[in-house]
Amino acid sequence: MSTAEVQPRKEEPPSAGSSAGGATLAEIARAAGVSAPTVSKVLNGRADVAPATRSRVEELLRRHGYRRRRSGSQQLQLLDLVFHELESSWAMEVIRGVENVAREEGFSLVLSESAGRLMPGQTWVDGVLARRPVGVILVLSDLDADQRTQLISRDIPFVVVDPAGDPGDDVPSIGATNWHGGLAATRHLVELGHRRIAVIGGPSSMMCSRARIDGYRAALETAGIAVDPELVREGDFHHESGYAVGLELLRLPEPPTAVFTGNDLQALGLYEAARELGLRIPEDLSVVGFDDLPIARWVGPPLTTVRQPLTEMAEAAARLVLDLGRAGPTAATRVDLATTLVARSSTAPPRR
Amino acid sequence: MSTAEVQPRKEEPPSAGSSAGGATLAEIARAAGVSAPTVSKVLNGRADVAPATRSRVEELLRRHGYRRRRSGSQQLQLLDLVFHELESSWAMEVIRGVENVAREEGFSLVLSESAGRLMPGQTWVDGVLARRPVGVILVLSDLDADQRTQLISRDIPFVVVDPAGDPGDDVPSIGATNWHGGLAATRHLVELGHRRIAVIGGPSSMMCSRARIDGYRAALETAGIAVDPELVREGDFHHESGYAVGLELLRLPEPPTAVFTGNDLQALGLYEAARELGLRIPEDLSVVGFDDLPIARWVGPPLTTVRQPLTEMAEAAARLVLDLGRAGPTAATRVDLATTLVARSSTAPPRR
Repeated sequence: MSTAEVQPRKEEPPSAGSSAGGATLAEIARAAGVSAPTVSKVLNGRADVAPATRSRVEELLRRHGYRRRRSGSQQLQLLDLVFHELESSWAMEVIRGVENVAREEGFSLVLSESAGRLMPGQTWVDGVLARRPVGVILVLSDLDADQRTQLISRDIPFVVVDPAGDPGDDVPSIGATNWHGGLAATRHLVELGHRRIAVIGGPSSMMCSRARIDGYRAALETAGIAVDPELVREGDFHHESGYAVGLELLRLPEPPTAVFTGNDLQALGLYEAARELGLRIPEDLSVVGFDDLPIARWVGPPLTTVRQPLTEMAEAAARLVLDLGRAGPTAATRVDLATTLVARSSTAPPRR
Repeated sequence: MSTAEVQPRKEEPPSAGSSAGGATLAEIARAAGVSAPTVSKVLNGRADVAPATRSRVEELLRRHGYRRRRSGSQQLQLLDLVFHELESSWAMEVIRGVENVAREEGFSLVLSESAGRLMPGQTWVDGVLARRPVGVILVLSDLDADQRTQLISRDIPFVVVDPAGDPGDDVPSIGATNWHGGLAATRHLVELGHRRIAVIGGPSSMMCSRARIDGYRAALETAGIAVDPELVREGDFHHESGYAVGLELLRLPEPPTAVFTGNDLQALGLYEAARELGLRIPEDLSVVGFDDLPIARWVGPPLTTVRQPLTEMAEAAARLVLDLGRAGPTAATRVDLATTLVARSSTAPPRR
């Protein structure tokens, strides 16, 4: 739906049982053959509406581009943050950023997890409609077209942080310069003298991972080094895949002298694989991570990595979604914050 | 306030501007010389009440042990979780536990941080009163007497997870068997043959840290080893103090051959101090942590530590606070979940 179709409507009271004030809500009720309070119930995500009625009303809301304006005097101001999985200090960095903004601006942060799925389920959407937050921040996940329409018709803006897929031009999102990060990580290794450089990416369905690997390729190609497909591997961004894929790479007849591991957790897995094979870092193997989680400074040896400003990204997303809520629909926004290489002790010139 | 003073009262409508239905609310209004809606505003945490009026009403609510019963039909069910600081994967383990229960039971999790203070401020309390959650879970922090009374008078139960201080018998809390954990950690080192064993605790104001250190003392004393005060040090549970205090210990004329570091983050700091001095773990120095964060498995060498079941503790706290909300005030509850020693590769017999 383009923003041009969307008209601001007369304000509706937020309580579910109130009578309808605005003509448009009444029109939708008439068209659906239901009472205005029933339309109001659907808008408020109430469970006591028959499924068939609910879909008919939703369809009419969608077709008419209905938008409920929210009351300025609303006392309880919620900001929704949803993760596809709550794991590792990666998520903690994002939570801290959103919480900073929520606290400063006097909003309550509602946190939820879509239980490992990259698309939150209908239960979650129903919860959002009932809560009526001022905005929704999605981390690494996205909404399908129906879910987007449901939020838009309730005037609930949303922003994606670090989009996993390719959210489309009409979805506001905050990311990082993943391609540049992959380029910088690999260039650093090339400049140290490495020629046989491997990469362990995340899932290929994640655009952020693809961008990092493309940056890796660009660094090799601009240095005149051919990309060896055997050295380009896929992981899942967890510690375990860094270990398992790392062992495969290090056991090759001609193993790499350096690995760009796609993220920090996979770097830790590779550390473990190297220890198991009796290889020293950085003397026998150089390692570059991505993210710069606190742990990167604390492992032995401290990890050279590409810093992704997760807390700042989360803060930017929170401010963007609040701005969208205040100003109404604006031109779609995609912002990528800069990544920077942080050189520590896990990289050195190769011995060969 | 003991629960015996508290009487259930007639149900009051939750909305701020509604007229008072119950006699008791009207009585309080009369005693305070204000209108019933003003009392209702105070109950709902509204800002538009003069501070003097607010304290007078709060005092009367407290003195009469007023409790508002909540409506069973309330649509938006919030569960509050407050941290004194959102940091490290320690907090992530707790969040995951509370989120699990909130999702299963259909509650929305509201997350906040008291900005490093062990006692949340009045702004936070006002937010809670306005949100009217079904319950509040406090992590490592506590409420003062006035704040407790404010929650009790609104019938909002609260539970403390891993209490930092000594919350008193009337405050329900979920902890871990810290003393036993300290005992098990130190016994493990004694059984390996260590005699010169140091401990780095957390802040002495935290009871959980004191209990761990007392377990350490008990293990030494029952093994017939005198406690050397020089080897008992205070840290702040962060990586940096493990590093700084670790350097002090390792530079002693007669350094320890093993250290129980009080938590995992301090163990990582000690790893760094040992690396800096060229000491190998476990050959030259044995290290035992506390918590068993995911990182404990991933560092080199993998860390022997005392597992504290943080996610289970958070789940238990969430279930307890929901039970308190359903059943009303019950006998106060203090539950400590068991800790267990997880032996990995950072401990070995001493060389001397």
